[in-house]
Amino acid sequence: MADDRISLVFAALADPIRRAILTRLTEGDATVAELAAPFDVSQPAISRHLKVLENAGLISRTRRATARLSHLEAEPLREVTTWLARYQRFWDESHERLDELLAALQGDRKGERDRDTAVRPRGDDHG
Amino acid sequence: MADDRISLVFAALADPIRRAILTRLTEGDATVAELAAPFDVSQPAISRHLKVLENAGLISRTRRATARLSHLEAEPLREVTTWLARYQRFWDESHERLDELLAALQGDRKGERDRDTAVRPRGDDHG
Repeated sequence: MADDRISLVFAALADPIRRAILTRLTEGDATVAELAAPFDVSQPAISRHLKVLENAGLISRTRRATARLSHLEAEPLREVTTWLARYQRFWDESHERLDELLAALQGDRKGERDRDTAVRPRGDDHG
Repeated sequence: MADDRISLVFAALADPIRRAILTRLTEGDATVAELAAPFDVSQPAISRHLKVLENAGLISRTRRATARLSHLEAEPLREVTTWLARYQRFWDESHERLDELLAALQGDRKGERDRDTAVRPRGDDHG
């Protein structure tokens, strides 16, 4: 996915109403009136949100009789999730540090119960 | 994560320079000058980007002598990835449809092989 496409997708997701519209569309295609119903905003405002989502490739729109139906297009969400996954090791690492801390604390607990055989926590560079 | 926090994180990610800054910080903490070096933008512009990242909780900043160091905080990335994961079944479904299509095509191929047992080269879409 091109850099500016990723930017469009993230920008489209940076609004709670647009995210709520995507959530609604997971239940099925919907008209502008149906999408506007839960919100205290005008249909033209919803239409502007739909335009942003459409430009980002997150929805497609088709006509059914006189109404335009919006349809969720999930592929860009997969693409930005793939982009985010590259950072997984950084949040995993912080979880590992947390695991180490918990293991060390449990070692201390064990030490209190069983002083001579207590497991020492790993060295800490931040000391 | 509160709705407006998710919005702040997505908005912070909606800029290629800010995403590049996060990528650079995966290699280690960096000063504003170090972060500005690869880009054709001023240090004040980079400082404004860092402010956006800091407000979204994506970086923290500490002082080292006279320089301010930026540090990647990956937790909000985990949180927005969790938010995106709820849509996984929608892109998985389209992958399943693709899998079904591929299985159907392979079934056709298998039929062709069964008719004449010659070993055929793999199909090439780019031909």
